[in-house]
Amino acid sequence: MRVRRRNPDRVDEVTGPLDVAALLAHLEVNPTTVLVILDGNLVTSATVLSDEADVEIRPVISGGAGPSRCHDCRGPAVIEEPRHRSAWCGEHFVDHVHRQIRKAIDHDRMFSYNDRILLAVSGGKDSLALWDALLTMGYGADGLYIGLGIGGYSKRSGRVCAEFAAKRGVELITVDLQEAYGYTTPSGSQASGRTTCGVCGLSKRYVFNRVAVEGGYDVVVTGHNLDDEAAVLLNNVLHWHEDFLARQRPLLPATGPNQVRKAKPLYRLSEREMAAYCVLRGIDYVVEECPLVDGNTGQEHKETLSALEAGSPGAKAQFLFGFLDRAEQLFPRRDDATAVALGECQTCGMPTTAAVCAFCKQRTRILVDLQGDPTGPAAAARQLPIVSTS
Amino acid sequence: MRVRRRNPDRVDEVTGPLDVAALLAHLEVNPTTVLVILDGNLVTSATVLSDEADVEIRPVISGGAGPSRCHDCRGPAVIEEPRHRSAWCGEHFVDHVHRQIRKAIDHDRMFSYNDRILLAVSGGKDSLALWDALLTMGYGADGLYIGLGIGGYSKRSGRVCAEFAAKRGVELITVDLQEAYGYTTPSGSQASGRTTCGVCGLSKRYVFNRVAVEGGYDVVVTGHNLDDEAAVLLNNVLHWHEDFLARQRPLLPATGPNQVRKAKPLYRLSEREMAAYCVLRGIDYVVEECPLVDGNTGQEHKETLSALEAGSPGAKAQFLFGFLDRAEQLFPRRDDATAVALGECQTCGMPTTAAVCAFCKQRTRILVDLQGDPTGPAAAARQLPIVSTS
Repeated sequence: MRVRRRNPDRVDEVTGPLDVAALLAHLEVNPTTVLVILDGNLVTSATVLSDEADVEIRPVISGGAGPSRCHDCRGPAVIEEPRHRSAWCGEHFVDHVHRQIRKAIDHDRMFSYNDRILLAVSGGKDSLALWDALLTMGYGADGLYIGLGIGGYSKRSGRVCAEFAAKRGVELITVDLQEAYGYTTPSGSQASGRTTCGVCGLSKRYVFNRVAVEGGYDVVVTGHNLDDEAAVLLNNVLHWHEDFLARQRPLLPATGPNQVRKAKPLYRLSEREMAAYCVLRGIDYVVEECPLVDGNTGQEHKETLSALEAGSPGAKAQFLFGFLDRAEQLFPRRDDATAVALGECQTCGMPTTAAVCAFCKQRTRILVDLQGDPTGPAAAARQLPIVSTS
Repeated sequence: MRVRRRNPDRVDEVTGPLDVAALLAHLEVNPTTVLVILDGNLVTSATVLSDEADVEIRPVISGGAGPSRCHDCRGPAVIEEPRHRSAWCGEHFVDHVHRQIRKAIDHDRMFSYNDRILLAVSGGKDSLALWDALLTMGYGADGLYIGLGIGGYSKRSGRVCAEFAAKRGVELITVDLQEAYGYTTPSGSQASGRTTCGVCGLSKRYVFNRVAVEGGYDVVVTGHNLDDEAAVLLNNVLHWHEDFLARQRPLLPATGPNQVRKAKPLYRLSEREMAAYCVLRGIDYVVEECPLVDGNTGQEHKETLSALEAGSPGAKAQFLFGFLDRAEQLFPRRDDATAVALGECQTCGMPTTAAVCAFCKQRTRILVDLQGDPTGPAAAARQLPIVSTS
C-alpha cells in the first residue's frame, strides 16, 4: 500500500494487507500521535488495509486504541479517545467537541451570544475548527488573519482562511504585517536580533488586541488547545515562572481601557481531537507546521507530555486541569490593587506599563535597522486604517 | 578497543584510535548520561582512546562537555560539569562534592557534629559516597543496611556495604526483612498483591525510623540526590499531589514521639557527580540496578529531565531549587496545628494516625497469606531484638 506521511512529506510502500495497529507498529509510529485516514475517512486500529490502499498518516499528537463502537449510538466508531475511554462515530464525535467547547465557555464565563467575538485564525486546524464550531453553535465570530510574511507558508495559510470565510459568508479581517507595520516576521527578527517566535508573538498579541479595540469587539478568542496549554504549563513549572503561572488562564479579563479580554475555548480538547474534527467536518487546513519554529521548546514539551499520555491516558488533562483547579490559590492573578497601573503608549495609545509599549519599541528598532528611519507605513498609527476586511 | 557497557552488561569491539566524544557519538550515547572510565580513571571528551584501550562506559544520568582544566588549580580535569560550567581534577572535584554537601547541611540545619546519625545504605553509589563524605567531614554516622531478599542483587549489595564498613572500621547495622519480619520484598509483594516498590518503600521507611528510635539516633539520613528529587518533583507536579509537595523537603522534622527527623544531604548533587565521586574515591559500589524496578515512572521522569538537561544545562537544578525556594509559600508543610495527631500503633508502638500502622497492617496481610498466621519472627516486636550489628 501507499503510505503518505507529513512533516516532512514522504511516501512509503508497505506490503498489505495489514491492520492499522500493525502498520503503525511496523513504521514505529506512536498511535496516540497520529490520525490514520483512508479515502478521506478516519479509520481505527482494527481496520484492515489492503495492499492497494492509499493511506495518510497525519501527525497531530495525543489519542489511540480502545473500543470501536460509538459511545453515544453504538454505531461503528471512527475515532477512539483513550482519555475519555470512549470512541465515537463522526456525528457524535462532533457533538463531543461542541460539548467540550460549551463546557469551557460556560465554566469560565467566556462570552455570550450577544458578544462581538474576534477569533484569531492562522489557517491551522485549531482556529479553523473553532471558527466552524462557534458559528455552528450560534456565536457571532469574525476572523482575524495576520499575514506574517513567512513565504509560501503564509500565502497558503492566508488563502485557506479566505476560502473558509468566503464559503461560509463570514467576515475575515486581514492585517499584513509588512503593509501595516513595515516588517515581516523574518525581516523583523533579523533586524532586531530577536527570535522569530519572539517577534511573531509580540506582534500577534498586539494586533489581536488593537484590532479588537478599534473594531469594538468584546473578546479576542484564540485556538490554543489542551496540548498547547499543557506544554506551556510544563515549561512554566520547570522554570517556576510565577508571573506566567499567574496569567495562564482560559479567560484573561481586560485590566484597563483599550484592552479586550481573551479566551481560549479549546483548552479542554487535544490537538488530535481538533485535527479529527477538521477531517470530519471537511475543513481544509494547513497541515504543514511553521518552517521557523522547528525543534523549539514547546514542541519538545509536547513530545514529553505525549510520551506520558501514551503510558497513562489522561495524564495531560490531569496536569492542566489540576493546575487550573488550584491556580487561583497557588498562583493568584494580580489584576487588581497589586498590579502595576497601565498607561497609554505615547506612540500608539495602546495599554502599557512604560512610556512606549513593547511593540512600538520593537518596531522602531526594526524600522531603523531596515530603512534607517523609525517611521513606517503605520507610524502615525492612530490615524491609519490598519485593517482591511475581506 | 574493548568497550564495556552496563545495564545490561555487554562488550563491544570498536576500531580506534577515537576520542571519547567520537566514541560516544558512534555508540549513540548521550555524553551527559555516562562516565567514561579508562584503566580505572575518569577521562574527558577530548581524550584519545587507542585501538588497544579497554574502556568502560558507565551509565549514571546527567553532566558532559566543557573545559578540560580544573576550575580550582588549572591542572588537567577529569570531570566536566556543564551545570556549573566547570571542570575539576580529581582532588578538587572531591572538594566540590564536599562543599555541596556542606551547603545542604548548613542551609537546612540538618545535623551537627554532636548528632548521632543513622545513614541508610543500599550498596549503591549515592549512599556509600555519602557515608564516605560524612566520615571524611567529621560526622559520626553509622550505616543501616536492610536485606530485602532480592536474590543475588541483595547478596551483592549487603556484601559491598559490609566491606565498606569493615575497611573503615565503622558500624553497620543490618536488618534482614525475612529474619526480622518474616517476608522478603518479592514474597511480600506476591502475598499482598501490592507492587514490589510499594512493599519495599513502606518496609524501608518503617525500619529506618524504628532502628533510629530504638538506637537513640538523632537523625536518619538517606542518599537521595538531585536526579531522584527532581524526578519525584516532576511526578508530584504532573499529578498536583499537594500533600506530597508539602512534604518534599531536604529536611523533614520529627512531628511527634517515636519519630526521628530525616535529611537528604545529596539533594544538590547529581547522580553523575555521585558516581564520579565513587570512582575517584575508590569506592566499590553495586552498579547494577534493582532487577524489580525496570521501567518504572521514576526512571521515565529521570530520562525526561536528562533530555531537558542536555539541551539546557542546569535545568534540573533550576526546577528543583526553584521549587524549594517557593515551597513553604506555595505548598506549606502541615506539621503543626492542622496536622492529624499521631498516636501509637497498637501492635508495634511506632507513630501512626490509625489504630494499627500501615506497616503492621501490610505485614499481617502478608504473613496470613504466606503461612496462614499473622505472627512472624517479630510479631511481639517491641520485645524482640530486631537489629544485629556488624
